[in-house]
Amino acid sequence: MSQVKFFLDEKDMPKKWYNLAADLPTPMLPSLTVDGQPVKPEMLEAVFPRNLIDQEMSTKRWIEIPQEVREMLYRWRPTPLRRAVHLEKFLKTPARIYYKDESVSPAGSHKTNSSIPQAWYNKQFGIKRLTTETGAGQWGTALAFACHLIGLECKVYMVRVSFDQKPMRQTMMGLWGAECIASPSPYTNAGRAVLAEMPDTPGSLGIAISEAVEAAVTDPSGQTRYALGSVLNHVLLHQTIIGLEAQKQLKKARIKTPDIVIGCAGGGSNFAGIAFPFTLEKINGAKIDIIPVESAACPKMTRGRFAYDHGDVAGMTPLLPMHSLGSQFIPPAIHAGGLRYHGMAPLVSQAIVEGLMRPHSVDQLHSYEAAIIWARTEGFVIAPESSNAVACVIEEANKAKREGKEKVILFNMSGHGLMDLAGYDKYLHGKLESSQVAQEEIDKSLARVQKVHLAPLRKTGRFHS
Amino acid sequence: MSQVKFFLDEKDMPKKWYNLAADLPTPMLPSLTVDGQPVKPEMLEAVFPRNLIDQEMSTKRWIEIPQEVREMLYRWRPTPLRRAVHLEKFLKTPARIYYKDESVSPAGSHKTNSSIPQAWYNKQFGIKRLTTETGAGQWGTALAFACHLIGLECKVYMVRVSFDQKPMRQTMMGLWGAECIASPSPYTNAGRAVLAEMPDTPGSLGIAISEAVEAAVTDPSGQTRYALGSVLNHVLLHQTIIGLEAQKQLKKARIKTPDIVIGCAGGGSNFAGIAFPFTLEKINGAKIDIIPVESAACPKMTRGRFAYDHGDVAGMTPLLPMHSLGSQFIPPAIHAGGLRYHGMAPLVSQAIVEGLMRPHSVDQLHSYEAAIIWARTEGFVIAPESSNAVACVIEEANKAKREGKEKVILFNMSGHGLMDLAGYDKYLHGKLESSQVAQEEIDKSLARVQKVHLAPLRKTGRFHS
Repeated sequence: MSQVKFFLDEKDMPKKWYNLAADLPTPMLPSLTVDGQPVKPEMLEAVFPRNLIDQEMSTKRWIEIPQEVREMLYRWRPTPLRRAVHLEKFLKTPARIYYKDESVSPAGSHKTNSSIPQAWYNKQFGIKRLTTETGAGQWGTALAFACHLIGLECKVYMVRVSFDQKPMRQTMMGLWGAECIASPSPYTNAGRAVLAEMPDTPGSLGIAISEAVEAAVTDPSGQTRYALGSVLNHVLLHQTIIGLEAQKQLKKARIKTPDIVIGCAGGGSNFAGIAFPFTLEKINGAKIDIIPVESAACPKMTRGRFAYDHGDVAGMTPLLPMHSLGSQFIPPAIHAGGLRYHGMAPLVSQAIVEGLMRPHSVDQLHSYEAAIIWARTEGFVIAPESSNAVACVIEEANKAKREGKEKVILFNMSGHGLMDLAGYDKYLHGKLESSQVAQEEIDKSLARVQKVHLAPLRKTGRFHS
Repeated sequence: MSQVKFFLDEKDMPKKWYNLAADLPTPMLPSLTVDGQPVKPEMLEAVFPRNLIDQEMSTKRWIEIPQEVREMLYRWRPTPLRRAVHLEKFLKTPARIYYKDESVSPAGSHKTNSSIPQAWYNKQFGIKRLTTETGAGQWGTALAFACHLIGLECKVYMVRVSFDQKPMRQTMMGLWGAECIASPSPYTNAGRAVLAEMPDTPGSLGIAISEAVEAAVTDPSGQTRYALGSVLNHVLLHQTIIGLEAQKQLKKARIKTPDIVIGCAGGGSNFAGIAFPFTLEKINGAKIDIIPVESAACPKMTRGRFAYDHGDVAGMTPLLPMHSLGSQFIPPAIHAGGLRYHGMAPLVSQAIVEGLMRPHSVDQLHSYEAAIIWARTEGFVIAPESSNAVACVIEEANKAKREGKEKVILFNMSGHGLMDLAGYDKYLHGKLESSQVAQEEIDKSLARVQKVHLAPLRKTGRFHS
């Protein structure tokens, strides 16, 4: 019964974020304009405040967390590290399974780790209003909360299919004063263009990003900026507080280094949050298997290409060096969970091609099966996103059992699933399909991204994936 | 920023529950049969296992928590004690506001504190199956979870209006293998009788209890029992772990005794959980204002009578000495929150008439206003039930401000409201009405309970309320 929960004191909460860009074996590839030129900071100033642009481009290893941001994070941080003893027992595995519980934040997920600093830096810069996109709703909720705390207006473009399925997500954002709009919407050029072509589209993150960016850059007052919930370097940076806390908590559990580190990966931010501090350990010689887990319905890491691609559907963002299924990709309609973004964070993508990480994909039937096993052993209802990580944890724990090895597995439980029970209900009633049925759709997107954007990546003379 | 969260080590988790029945200034009134005779333990054996009946009737002060039950509670207990510094700041009050956060359990509320031991004692007694009722859904979810952990079947009769409004509650119960049925149902005599008279009834806890009790006692195998989520002595006993933990945590915050202790009260269990250990302090001389808070839409303590009344609509339960609006009472349709039970726990009721507690009622518009203030200051979305407690906390904190007194207020945050956002949505869109509009309905119920059941109480020669 002992040694299953590890808390940290306030005084042990990290004071600096860790920046993997400082330690990658080869320097990060730059983002490019459509003409193939490296993006300069000033080109991004209509979209982000300069202080966040500097953070985005920084290669400094440790970046101080402002005192005010730390005080806000302290409302629920440090988050607990728990040991999943009931799951271990169920699996009869010799592995020890530890997880960070990021569901304890007011918005219910890790997303607040970045929404708070993003809102704070924007406020510092004199910005009055933020726009953003949200898929399953976790990020929109987190940004609504942060904007309320810090005193900014907030407008959220929510992917249509989620907007319709999760009306309570809108209520939660409304509680904190944010405006939530279904995307594609008739209020932006990007939205209108998509609606004209596909009036019944379920929407996508790529479309919602185009709308939110357009709404920010076209505000004549110049006091609106855009905030992204994942993918970008500064977002991943903010999330490293998860792994930095975990390192201290594992010491309390008398573990020097975990054997395996796992996180689910949509755009890559919660995965990076737990994984990057351990990636530094690996660069410094530790033997750690670091696994980003994606949905087989949106398999950018295992089936996409490492290429230059846009972050959004309308091509408003720069070209990012990342694993991508193509910015036009819309997840198949059979897909019920999150992790719907067409690309993977450049920092994670580059770490993969440099051999520091080993991506893995999970069929949605397996992810929901894992979520049910979790609820029936550990007791908590987890986000469909996190269940992909749990599916991988179960595979690795079973492997440890077959090999008779006492491995230590660490993973990130990125959020609770209390707003996402519709997917559980479908699974319990046998109404979910395997991600396999969508493979043809994915093949088509793959052919497209290869044709359009692989050339500029070749020009760099590196990473001929 | 310091001293806002207080955790307890596993070793400090209470090993005994506290039984207020041992310390009330005058002995507890007995439950009665309809003939006015005291109920004997064996009369309850078709409904409850004998070990819980003994606990129900015990007047022993401290009752040991079985080791196995403690291990299960330890999954999420001890729960945190937090200081609501952001609410204090918003109110500009000199009062210090502390609260126990019972939302952290897998089922999302304090209810698991009793569902786990109830399922455990039934299992010990050889029972295979439990039936129960649920209103808002917190108790049904908690019992489903406990039955899954312990290995019992579970059938939940859910008040129709909640069943229809909260389909995700059913999913959550289903996740843990429980069967959930809308009440009144066509499967019991009690349900059929109500449906014949009122086919469109929204249902009530009194009806659902009749159905669940009937389903238990009519099982020919004799291996089914009934479990109640509040009201009864043993349920309140199990909840005292909340207040016992809070006492230890307040010491860590260097507080000897709080000035005010507050809990919302439907049947009384979460309130009793936080309040009873402090009621003992009060009996022993401490000066504490102890406030159970009810909804003005179901005001048994402030407008009901202390009388003998049935716990259910069909009269299957004994007559209980309690504050009641009449067992036929159905909360007005305008009521959106929980706390819908017609009666108040006998232990709480008697403590009230003995002057140990001071009940307070809250209009639902004020309770939702308080919930919104909470979400916008402390950040968390609380259960509509708990928001009644918060409304009272705000009143007391404002009073402390007017008086210029540095009072310490302690309250119980009984659960989160993530499954109850529909009520929030109504409030935010101006669609909720004041509880005042339902006063005529309440007056009628009052007249009825006075006529039918006040006599037997007078016979005891005590408590002429």
